[in-house]
Amino acid sequence: MFIDLRSDTVTKPTEKMRKASFEAELGDDVYREDPSVNELERKAAELLGKEAALFVTSGTQGNQIAVLSHCQPGNEIILESDAHLFYYEGAAISAFAGVQPRTIKGMRGAMNPLEVEAAIRDEDIHAPETGLICIENTHNRAGGAIVPTQNMKAIYEVAIKHNIPVHLDGARLFNAAVALNKPVSEFTKYTTTVQICLSKGLGAPVGSILAGNEDFIKRARKWRKRLGGGLRQVGVLAAPGYIALTEMVERLAEDHENAKFLAEGLSQIPTISIAGHVETNIVLVDISQLNMSTGEFLEILKGEGILAVAFGPTTIRFTTHFDVNREHIEEVIEKLSNRFSK
Amino acid sequence: MFIDLRSDTVTKPTEKMRKASFEAELGDDVYREDPSVNELERKAAELLGKEAALFVTSGTQGNQIAVLSHCQPGNEIILESDAHLFYYEGAAISAFAGVQPRTIKGMRGAMNPLEVEAAIRDEDIHAPETGLICIENTHNRAGGAIVPTQNMKAIYEVAIKHNIPVHLDGARLFNAAVALNKPVSEFTKYTTTVQICLSKGLGAPVGSILAGNEDFIKRARKWRKRLGGGLRQVGVLAAPGYIALTEMVERLAEDHENAKFLAEGLSQIPTISIAGHVETNIVLVDISQLNMSTGEFLEILKGEGILAVAFGPTTIRFTTHFDVNREHIEEVIEKLSNRFSK
Amino acid sequence: MFIDLRSDTVTKPTEKMRKASFEAELGDDVYREDPSVNELERKAAELLGKEAALFVTSGTQGNQIAVLSHCQPGNEIILESDAHLFYYEGAAISAFAGVQPRTIKGMRGAMNPLEVEAAIRDEDIHAPETGLICIENTHNRAGGAIVPTQNMKAIYEVAIKHNIPVHLDGARLFNAAVALNKPVSEFTKYTTTVQICLSKGLGAPVGSILAGNEDFIKRARKWRKRLGGGLRQVGVLAAPGYIALTEMVERLAEDHENAKFLAEGLSQIPTISIAGHVETNIVLVDISQLNMSTGEFLEILKGEGILAVAFGPTTIRFTTHFDVNREHIEEVIEKLSNRFSK
Amino acid sequence: MFIDLRSDTVTKPTEKMRKASFEAELGDDVYREDPSVNELERKAAELLGKEAALFVTSGTQGNQIAVLSHCQPGNEIILESDAHLFYYEGAAISAFAGVQPRTIKGMRGAMNPLEVEAAIRDEDIHAPETGLICIENTHNRAGGAIVPTQNMKAIYEVAIKHNIPVHLDGARLFNAAVALNKPVSEFTKYTTTVQICLSKGLGAPVGSILAGNEDFIKRARKWRKRLGGGLRQVGVLAAPGYIALTEMVERLAEDHENAKFLAEGLSQIPTISIAGHVETNIVLVDISQLNMSTGEFLEILKGEGILAVAFGPTTIRFTTHFDVNREHIEEVIEKLSNRFSK
Repeated sequence: MFIDLRSDTVTKPTEKMRKASFEAELGDDVYREDPSVNELERKAAELLGKEAALFVTSGTQGNQIAVLSHCQPGNEIILESDAHLFYYEGAAISAFAGVQPRTIKGMRGAMNPLEVEAAIRDEDIHAPETGLICIENTHNRAGGAIVPTQNMKAIYEVAIKHNIPVHLDGARLFNAAVALNKPVSEFTKYTTTVQICLSKGLGAPVGSILAGNEDFIKRARKWRKRLGGGLRQVGVLAAPGYIALTEMVERLAEDHENAKFLAEGLSQIPTISIAGHVETNIVLVDISQLNMSTGEFLEILKGEGILAVAFGPTTIRFTTHFDVNREHIEEVIEKLSNRFSK
Repeated sequence: MFIDLRSDTVTKPTEKMRKASFEAELGDDVYREDPSVNELERKAAELLGKEAALFVTSGTQGNQIAVLSHCQPGNEIILESDAHLFYYEGAAISAFAGVQPRTIKGMRGAMNPLEVEAAIRDEDIHAPETGLICIENTHNRAGGAIVPTQNMKAIYEVAIKHNIPVHLDGARLFNAAVALNKPVSEFTKYTTTVQICLSKGLGAPVGSILAGNEDFIKRARKWRKRLGGGLRQVGVLAAPGYIALTEMVERLAEDHENAKFLAEGLSQIPTISIAGHVETNIVLVDISQLNMSTGEFLEILKGEGILAVAFGPTTIRFTTHFDVNREHIEEVIEKLSNRFSK
Repeated sequence: MFIDLRSDTVTKPTEKMRKASFEAELGDDVYREDPSVNELERKAAELLGKEAALFVTSGTQGNQIAVLSHCQPGNEIILESDAHLFYYEGAAISAFAGVQPRTIKGMRGAMNPLEVEAAIRDEDIHAPETGLICIENTHNRAGGAIVPTQNMKAIYEVAIKHNIPVHLDGARLFNAAVALNKPVSEFTKYTTTVQICLSKGLGAPVGSILAGNEDFIKRARKWRKRLGGGLRQVGVLAAPGYIALTEMVERLAEDHENAKFLAEGLSQIPTISIAGHVETNIVLVDISQLNMSTGEFLEILKGEGILAVAFGPTTIRFTTHFDVNREHIEEVIEKLSNRFSK
Repeated sequence: MFIDLRSDTVTKPTEKMRKASFEAELGDDVYREDPSVNELERKAAELLGKEAALFVTSGTQGNQIAVLSHCQPGNEIILESDAHLFYYEGAAISAFAGVQPRTIKGMRGAMNPLEVEAAIRDEDIHAPETGLICIENTHNRAGGAIVPTQNMKAIYEVAIKHNIPVHLDGARLFNAAVALNKPVSEFTKYTTTVQICLSKGLGAPVGSILAGNEDFIKRARKWRKRLGGGLRQVGVLAAPGYIALTEMVERLAEDHENAKFLAEGLSQIPTISIAGHVETNIVLVDISQLNMSTGEFLEILKGEGILAVAFGPTTIRFTTHFDVNREHIEEVIEKLSNRFSK
C-alpha cells in the first residue's frame, strides 16, 4: 500500500458515509423528489449563506454551470492566471459557454483589486463584455494559499460598482475557513455564487455544491441537465455528502497540521526546499537543485511507497487528507531524508 | 403511496444493489483506479460487443459525449424527429457541440434508410457536413417501439458507404433485446457507438454506459471531464450498476407483460384508446375523446393515487418497471374503468 | 457567353451603380462616419418600416446576426424545413449561436400557424426554450413561392402571444412585394426583424440589409464586428446598394414575366414538367422522366450555352434576373425543345 | 476638416483605386468566377509565399477564420497578452471557435520562445490541447513595434517541434517589411498562415487576405461562407485591393518618417512623453503628468482640429497614414506645443 499524497480527492468514504448511502431515503431527483438530495441542498444553502443550492457531480461541473448561468457567449471573465477554471478544466469555459478568460497574475492566489478593476472592459464595439469575476479559495496552484477575506471584499466592491457577478471556486473553501477559524459564510458573503467540493478533504465519494440565489439556481438546474448532470436516485451520493458537510469539516485542521509538519520535516533536507509557505493541506516542494525531472523524482518516491504529483517543471505537490495520518507523514519525511540528504 | 407509472427512471435500487455499493472496493476514477468502475466498464464493453466502455452519469451525458466525440461544429447529424437527443436534451447538441439536427420522421421510431441516405449532404460550400447518424432503440416517443435489427442493418450499410459513424441511443436497448430474445450485441453490431442506461428498467440508482472503440473512448473520457463527469470514488455507483447490468436484464420481460396487460385492460374503456401497440414497457393512451386536457386527466389520476405523464396534447404515457407489479396494474385498470367508462 | 440562369446573384452591377461607387462620399464605417452607408441604412429602415438598419455583406451574414442577436445557446428556433437558414448556411446557426432548428414542412414555403404554435416548447427541464420563429419570403426551395401576408400575420399573432420574436429572411422579399403589388412594409409589419438582399434581383454587387428596432441593431452591430463584418470605407458598396434599393425594385416584374414565359415554353416539352407554379423569378423543372441525373442534364445544357443548377435529385432550378432578357429566354426554350422533344 | 490620426483605417481610396473598381471585370465569387478576385488572391499568395490566398472582408474576419480552420473547440491558443485577436475581437475566438486564449506578456510585442514552449500543454485529462500559436507583426498595442524575424523563427521552431501551427496577424505586416527593408516572405516563412490588411496603411477601402496551403484555404473558404463572408461581384473590392497590394507598399516609408518626426516634435513638450520608441507608423504618448483623463485630452485635441484615440488610462495613440502629410504633422506638433508646454 502506498502513502498517497497525490490529492485529497483520493480519500475513501468513511463507514458512516457508506452506511448513510445504504440507508438513504431516495427518489427521482429530476422530479426533485429525492429527500436526501433536498436535505443536502437545503443544509448547504444555509451554511453557505445563499438562497438555494444544487448538487452537482464535480467541482468542474459546478464551475462550468456557474459560467454558463452567469455569462453570454462573447463575454470575458476575469480570473487568476493559475485558477483551476482556467488551467485544469480543458478550456470548457470557451468550448461550452463561449467566454474568453482574462487572466491576472495573483500574489499567492489573490488578485490585486486595482488590476481587477482595470481589466473590466469599457463598452466598445471591439471589446467583449466583462461577464464574471472568479476567485479560487484556497488556491490550489498557489499551494493551498488562503485568499484573505479583505481581498475578497475589495474585489466584491469593485464587482458591485460595475454590476458584475462574482463566483467563488471554493473547492477547498472549508480548508480556508478552518484555517482562519471563520465560518464559510464570512467568505461567501463577498460572492454572488459559490461552488464547494464534498469529495476532497471532506471525504465524500462524489459531489459538489453550487449555491446562489433562487433565480440563478433555476438557470443552473437547466444547464446541469444539458451537461448530463440531472440524475435520478442520487440520494445515494447526497447522503454521504451530508455527512461530509456536517461532520467532516473540523477535522481538516489535522490535515493542515500534518501538512505543516511535513513541510517542516522536508525543509531540513538540504537538496530540496519548500515553495511558499504552508497555510492549509498542500505542500509545494522545489526540487530544482536535484537536477532531475519531476518524473524521475516521482518514480523514486513511488519506489519508496509514496505518491505525489508534479506541479510544473521543478515543483512537486504533496496533499494531506483524511486517509494519511501523522505516522504516514513521519515515514515520508524519514524516507525522503534518507534518500535525498546524503 | 402512489402507483408511479411516470417513468422507469423512478425505480429504487434493490437491497442487493445498495449492499454492493456499501461494500464496493473504491479508488479515484479520474486516475482510473476505481476497481468497481473498471470492472463495470470491462463487462459492459464485453456485453455490448465494443472495445471499450465508459461510465457516465446519465443517458443525456452519454449521448452528448458521443456527439462531441464524433462531430465538429458546423456538422449536421441525422436523427428521428422524435428522438430523445433532439426532443429532450435542451438543444445541448447545438449549444455544446455546435451541430445541427436533421430530423427524419420515422415509422414507429424507425427511419427509412432511403430517406437517411437522401439526407446525407453532398460536398458543397453551402452545406454542413453530415457527421453522425443516430438511432434510438427502443424509441421512447414512439411508445417504446422496437427498431428492427434489419432496419438498423440497412441504415448502418448506408452509413458505412458514406463513411459516417452511427450512434445508438440505447437508453432502453435491453428492453428491445429481451422483447426480441436477442443479445444486445445483435443490435450494437450495426452501430459505431452505443449508450445504454443502468438507471431505467435495470434499476440502478444512477448511471449509463457509453461504448465504442478505444480511440473513441479516449476522446469521450476527455469530453466527460469537460462536462464535469470525471468523478472520484464512483465505484459506489458502478457496483450497483454492475448488478443492474448482469442480474436485472431478464426481468424486463415482466415489465413488458405488465404493459401489455395494462394496454389490454385500458382498451376496454370506450372513452380512451391505445395509441399504436405495445412492444415493451411503455403504453401510450389517446384521451382525445374525453374532451379534457392532459393536465386535467393527470390530476384525476393523481386523485386516484396513480401517476403518469403527458406526451403531447392528447396523449398520456404509462411506463411499467420493477417497482410496479401485476396487482398495481390491476388496480390502475379498475380505477380508470370506474372513472372513465361511465 | 453563357445564358446564365443559375441564380439572380450573378447579376453584374449597372453602369450607374459603378458610377455611384466611384463617386461615393466615404468614411470609416466602424466609426459610423461613412455618409453613403448612413444614408443607405436610413433609407432601408424607412422602406422596411423599422427603427434602424445595418448594412451586412451577405444574406447569410444578416440571417446569422439575427439569430445571434435574438437567441441564447440552448434555444430552439422554428423554421420551414427547406429554409435557407437551415439548408444552405452550413449549420452556422448551431456552430455559432448554439441554437437548434425545429423544422416544419410548409406548403409552398408557408408553415401552418397551428403547427408553429404546437412546436413552441413549454417550460420544462428537458426542453430548449423557443427563441425565434423564422419565415422566408419568397421561399427559394419552394420555387420562389410567395408566403401570403395572411399567413405571416397569423404566425406573427402566435409569436406575440408567446412573446417570441419573428425574423424574416427576405433575401427576395422585393420579388414578393412586386408580384403582389404591395409595399414591403405590408410584409415586414408582421415581423420583428428582417433581412433583405441588395445583390440578388436588385443587382448590387455585394450586400444585404438587416433591420429592426434600435436596441436590436445595437446588438447586431456588435455581432457583425465579431463576424468580421465591421468594415471601413464601405460606402463603395453602400452607394450602389442605394441605387439597387431605390431604382431597381419595379423592374423585378420583368424577371417574373420572363420566368412565366420560360415555364410556359418549357411546359410544352413532353419529357419534362414544371414543378409547382411560377410566382416570381424562379422556375423549377422536374426531369424525372428523362432518366438522367441532374448532372448529366446540366452538362447538356452547358453544351448548349445555358447554365442552371440542380435542386435535389430530379429537379433543376432556372432563375431569371436583370442580365437575361426575353430573347435569351426564347433561345433557352428553343434549344431545350429541340434537344428534349424528339 | 480634422487632421485624423486615429487610425490608418480611415484612409480613403485613391482615385486610381476607385477607377480600378469602376472598371473591374466581375463575376460571382461564390462560384469562384470573379476574375478580379482570382487575380488578387493569386498575387497575394505569391507575395506571401503561400500556396493559396482568400479575400476576406476584414482583419478580424481573417483572424477568426484562421482560428476556426486550425482549431477544435476545447483547444487553447497561445498569443501575446495585448494581441488584437485577444483584445479587440469581442472574444469571438471563444464565442465562435470555442478556444481558450493563453496569453504571454511580450517585450514590445515579441513573446519569449521559452515562455511559448513552457505554455504548450502536455497531454493530460485536465488540459486543453494547444491548437495554435499566434504572432502579431507589427504589434498594434506595443506601439507599432516590429517583432524581429529571429524571434519569429525561434517561435516557429518551437511550433514545428510540437507540431502546432503558427498564424501571423499581419494586419500591418507591410509596415514591418518596409521598415526593415525585407520582403514580407522573410516574415511569413516562419508561419503556417498569415492575414494581411489591404485597408490600413495600404489604403484600400475594404478587405484583407488570408493565406496558407491549399487544404487550409479550402477549409477557410467554408468557414468564410458560414461567417457571411462569401460574396458575389466582390471584384469591386478586389480591384482596388490589388492596387493597394502592388503599388502602395513602398510609400509606407513616408508614414514611418512622419511618425518619427511627430514623436520627435512631441518629445520636446515637457508635460508629455513618448512611450517606447517609434519603429513604424504608430506613436504612443504618455500623458500621465498632465493630470487629466484621456477623454479630456482627446476633447482638447478635437477642439484644435486633431483626432487621436485613447490606448489605456494614460496613453494616446497617434497613427500616421496616406491621408496625412508632413504639413499636417507640423501643425499637430505646433498646436500641442502651444497648448501643453505653457
